[in-house]
Amino acid sequence: MYKLYYVPGTCALASHIALEEAGADYSATRLDFKTNQQQSPEYLKINAKGRVPSLVTDKGVITETPAILAYIAQVFPKAKLAPTDDPFAFAQAQSFNNYLCATVHVAHAHKARGYRWASEESSFADMKRKLPQSMSACFDLIENGMLKGPWVMGEQYTICDPYLYTIGLWLDGDGVDLKTLPKVMAHRQRMSERPAVLKVLAQEQA
Amino acid sequence: MYKLYYVPGTCALASHIALEEAGADYSATRLDFKTNQQQSPEYLKINAKGRVPSLVTDKGVITETPAILAYIAQVFPKAKLAPTDDPFAFAQAQSFNNYLCATVHVAHAHKARGYRWASEESSFADMKRKLPQSMSACFDLIENGMLKGPWVMGEQYTICDPYLYTIGLWLDGDGVDLKTLPKVMAHRQRMSERPAVLKVLAQEQA
Repeated sequence: MYKLYYVPGTCALASHIALEEAGADYSATRLDFKTNQQQSPEYLKINAKGRVPSLVTDKGVITETPAILAYIAQVFPKAKLAPTDDPFAFAQAQSFNNYLCATVHVAHAHKARGYRWASEESSFADMKRKLPQSMSACFDLIENGMLKGPWVMGEQYTICDPYLYTIGLWLDGDGVDLKTLPKVMAHRQRMSERPAVLKVLAQEQA
Repeated sequence: MYKLYYVPGTCALASHIALEEAGADYSATRLDFKTNQQQSPEYLKINAKGRVPSLVTDKGVITETPAILAYIAQVFPKAKLAPTDDPFAFAQAQSFNNYLCATVHVAHAHKARGYRWASEESSFADMKRKLPQSMSACFDLIENGMLKGPWVMGEQYTICDPYLYTIGLWLDGDGVDLKTLPKVMAHRQRMSERPAVLKVLAQEQA
């Protein structure tokens, strides 16, 4: 039995979808950003970073989306969520997910979390103005090469797909021209039709 | 035969050390940031992101440090650079490396790469002022819990160690009070005595 801590609208959605796709026995616990629940003493014992997602396993807690996703793929091999037996192919999937976490998610975070890296209101406003440009540059690379189609890694659905879908949902609010991203938008549509995605979205939005 | 593209002083050092520790048959090719060689048409064919490191294998190119490090651990199992046969322990190593790439390296990048996320000189100055605080916060978590000792994951040296060592080398220039980080500093000393590290540093600094 796994336990996922999440906040709706965050990157935790990727791990939530992956658990569902894997057929895992899990529960999902919602934290409330508005009351700063992710910084509560109780939650900091689970994840000292005060962030989501956290995946509680019978051996301990796993944090960081790419690590959680690779773990789910490894412990549920029948779901074939990553080519774990092919080091090069696995590295390609890991590389894609690392790009999402360290570059794309980070670009997006400058919209509302500028206080992590600066202190002045003028800097936060500057970051917000730059957001459409930085997010567009990230997704141009995904559109023009990284997303092989129909799924990120090609014919096989993997842990890269729920993660791209999750971060791609932020594009609408980030001022990116969606018409420049036909492959990304087709991928989003494909994802939105999967039973696991429909089930998890219904749960997170309930 | 592997080929690593690197720039001295960057996170590519982690992959360079890991190749050496693994006993890999590899060559290392230096790029010059000053002439913007990482953005040259030739290099962009290897890595469209225009960043280092890139690891060229006989199957293709791998980018992103955590993906390269996990790949090296997987293809050189005798070096025991990661617990690849234990999904939970492997996830802990991946989680540590993801934290370094998506949070710690990103915090550091605001010192000289603020143009990725903002446009105004005043924002860049603000980011530079915030740097000691954000890097200190990152390393406080590492010092007080994440670094188990003597190596990151405990008794076994893994792919987390060259990565922590590499990013930790930036602390001196980032205005962090090293006296608050005795475990991190002892780890740096331990790393600096390893033959693989001495050999790679000599090569990168030649």
